[in-house]
Amino acid sequence: MKKVVTIGGGTGRFPVLLGLKRYPVELSAIVTMFDDGGSTGRLRDELGVLPPGDLRQSLIALGESGTLMRKLFSHRYQNGGLEGHNFGNIFISTLEKISGSIDKALEIVGTILNIKGKVIPVTLDTAELVTELKNGKVITGEDALGEYQLVSKFGVKKMSLKPKAKIHPKALAALKEADVIIVGPGDLYTSLIPNFLVQGFSEAFVKSKARKVYVANLMNRHGHTDDFTVADYVRALEATIGKEGVFDTVVYNTKMPSATLIKKYADEGTPVRFDKNAFAHPRKYIGVDVLADGVAKKAKGDVLQRSFIRHSPQKLAKVLAKL
Amino acid sequence: MKKVVTIGGGTGRFPVLLGLKRYPVELSAIVTMFDDGGSTGRLRDELGVLPPGDLRQSLIALGESGTLMRKLFSHRYQNGGLEGHNFGNIFISTLEKISGSIDKALEIVGTILNIKGKVIPVTLDTAELVTELKNGKVITGEDALGEYQLVSKFGVKKMSLKPKAKIHPKALAALKEADVIIVGPGDLYTSLIPNFLVQGFSEAFVKSKARKVYVANLMNRHGHTDDFTVADYVRALEATIGKEGVFDTVVYNTKMPSATLIKKYADEGTPVRFDKNAFAHPRKYIGVDVLADGVAKKAKGDVLQRSFIRHSPQKLAKVLAKL
Repeated sequence: MKKVVTIGGGTGRFPVLLGLKRYPVELSAIVTMFDDGGSTGRLRDELGVLPPGDLRQSLIALGESGTLMRKLFSHRYQNGGLEGHNFGNIFISTLEKISGSIDKALEIVGTILNIKGKVIPVTLDTAELVTELKNGKVITGEDALGEYQLVSKFGVKKMSLKPKAKIHPKALAALKEADVIIVGPGDLYTSLIPNFLVQGFSEAFVKSKARKVYVANLMNRHGHTDDFTVADYVRALEATIGKEGVFDTVVYNTKMPSATLIKKYADEGTPVRFDKNAFAHPRKYIGVDVLADGVAKKAKGDVLQRSFIRHSPQKLAKVLAKL
Repeated sequence: MKKVVTIGGGTGRFPVLLGLKRYPVELSAIVTMFDDGGSTGRLRDELGVLPPGDLRQSLIALGESGTLMRKLFSHRYQNGGLEGHNFGNIFISTLEKISGSIDKALEIVGTILNIKGKVIPVTLDTAELVTELKNGKVITGEDALGEYQLVSKFGVKKMSLKPKAKIHPKALAALKEADVIIVGPGDLYTSLIPNFLVQGFSEAFVKSKARKVYVANLMNRHGHTDDFTVADYVRALEATIGKEGVFDTVVYNTKMPSATLIKKYADEGTPVRFDKNAFAHPRKYIGVDVLADGVAKKAKGDVLQRSFIRHSPQKLAKVLAKL
């Protein structure tokens, strides 16, 4: 069976995992581990655990158990002392605390949710994301970076982890054995780049004989990647990795959302445009309709539905499974 | 297979369930549902659910899954926003809230903990325990009653539920089909009597053709049942049930704890004495050593170890399984 590894955090890789789990592939989701906001941030501080939020989302995406269990693990409390907390986060963190091992916790939650595939933290070390902008401003923390709306304006000079974090041996093994590695979709600065800052990660990525695929976002993120083309994302990633042209395949969307939807979405960002001439290196460019049909309702705490405009898990998986 | 039903709340029925699950019997634990203190009380108020605490303890007692899962479900948070909460309570309550059914929640948690037997809430109605003392004082709530230290001094006049609560059909069926029903050990006023106040419960208990066993506590509870003999407990229960002599069997402990232990325990209560002449009705009296050997450590939040002096699950089950 083909071994497929995804890299990312946030909600971006949700459709990729959701779609690919229906195919006969061995899936491993390598997950960003630097979230420090919301329920995740509170659990990190109070229980002294690794950030559970991104892991939880991958577990839910890969889960084959019934709707009820997926709803349970996505549940966000709306009032009282638990307000803002997410049940899945509490579960993972408490299990990590008691067992002393995030891998053990993931194994148990994976069994309960009956996941197809593996969820692997990119690192087991605790570290903060540090972002230096070109105007000299330094932003500490993933959450603070996410909230900062002038990233595009000033531009990112350098990102790093403090203290340094080493790659989880399981992530290293997954990269090594992969047939296909999929990076994205996902927020460039908070979900994708941080993984490549982990010691040993970029090297392992470059060395891996896997096909390396970048799946472009549908929409730019206002305040972070305004007016980025697909090539700009690839360039930023490859600059972090330290090897131009390392992505041999780029998948991008060709179907524009309706004018109504784009208007609705205007505060959050504009569609990502593809311009082949903007790329300096030759590679395979796959332009295809991967847009989800219909309008998703925006519901609080529901991972799939945070955006009006999103990838279709089915369409995306169909393209990726062919690689 | 013989059908054994236990009735109770609190920590009392822990050794009974723990011991009996090793025997080839069909176990059903009918659980008190009026706890309104601590983590349970907060979840009731904030999530609008039924009290999870007593259910959780029965689930853990009947669980056959590994130590880690039992530790997880017993875990009490020591700091931060979750302080005082118990993981198992949060799990059960969230699941009840999402599924809209405590039975569904118990089914899922039962599967995860791999329980041997069934855990049945005595009622699905929300009600408060109301205790009227002989001096006219009225105490509302199970937690408030538990905290009140002058119950013995003034004596209990009448207990009731407000509003009325109807017996859960599953509890009714369990009582009807039971071969043996075991009441106790457990706190008389907060864990045992409340069940018999549920509409339809005492009637079903009386009507049941099962052998009806009262298992006496080892120690009286200071402030609540000071200087009670075994007969006083049975009398109070039968007065609530409305039928003298309804218990056909009484099991009591014959082995006194060491003087050192009794001294250590002095603030909490004194040993329960057995006096056959104090009973008005003929029944089977089984006096036997059911005392746990050794001294249990008192650890916060650990259900089994709240008392220095406790029942041996093995010794107790050996006697009960013979009935």
